[in-house]
Amino acid sequence: MLHYPVWFDLKPGVEEASGLGTVREFLASLTQTEEANAFRLLRNTGERPRTPLPRYHALVEFTDQAALDIAMKAQATRGIFHGFHGAVVDVVSNFHVEIFDALDS
Amino acid sequence: MLHYPVWFDLKPGVEEASGLGTVREFLASLTQTEEANAFRLLRNTGERPRTPLPRYHALVEFTDQAALDIAMKAQATRGIFHGFHGAVVDVVSNFHVEIFDALDS
Repeated sequence: MLHYPVWFDLKPGVEEASGLGTVREFLASLTQTEEANAFRLLRNTGERPRTPLPRYHALVEFTDQAALDIAMKAQATRGIFHGFHGAVVDVVSNFHVEIFDALDS
Repeated sequence: MLHYPVWFDLKPGVEEASGLGTVREFLASLTQTEEANAFRLLRNTGERPRTPLPRYHALVEFTDQAALDIAMKAQATRGIFHGFHGAVVDVVSNFHVEIFDALDS
């Protein structure tokens, strides 16, 4: 399983419930089309996060690198400034992503 | 659900399989005693991670803040330099932790 964790902030003036709703709608669309396996949306509980990363965190799971590649191509075809992804681009800032392999646990 | 993500490196000279095995043994002991709900052990796939965080990542889940408090007290009673946790302290460096609330998804 490939973990695709994303950290982000919301743009100034974006209300939290609304901004996170937009992100959730996009991520749900990816799992509904089975491009992604699962996602979780998290918020740092600290008032002043000690982390060097932005406050919000989306954990997205893909089966493997091939599945991620397919999802990336599908998104590029739809256009990153259109539809659900375009709505996310409008509300999110400081986007930071890493890719992690799940080790046996 | 409370997410307790930990980032860490292995100390110089610690072989990866051995060091991660030690971490896995500790985390498995927490889920076996039901102090933690679940865990995953991840490794950044990047050769030179772009992240400001250490290379390895353990995602640990607790039911809520009360469950985390109980687990912390239990660990303090066992002693952080003893047993499974003590073994982890011996192999891990650059320990960094945040606490995240899971938002509805």
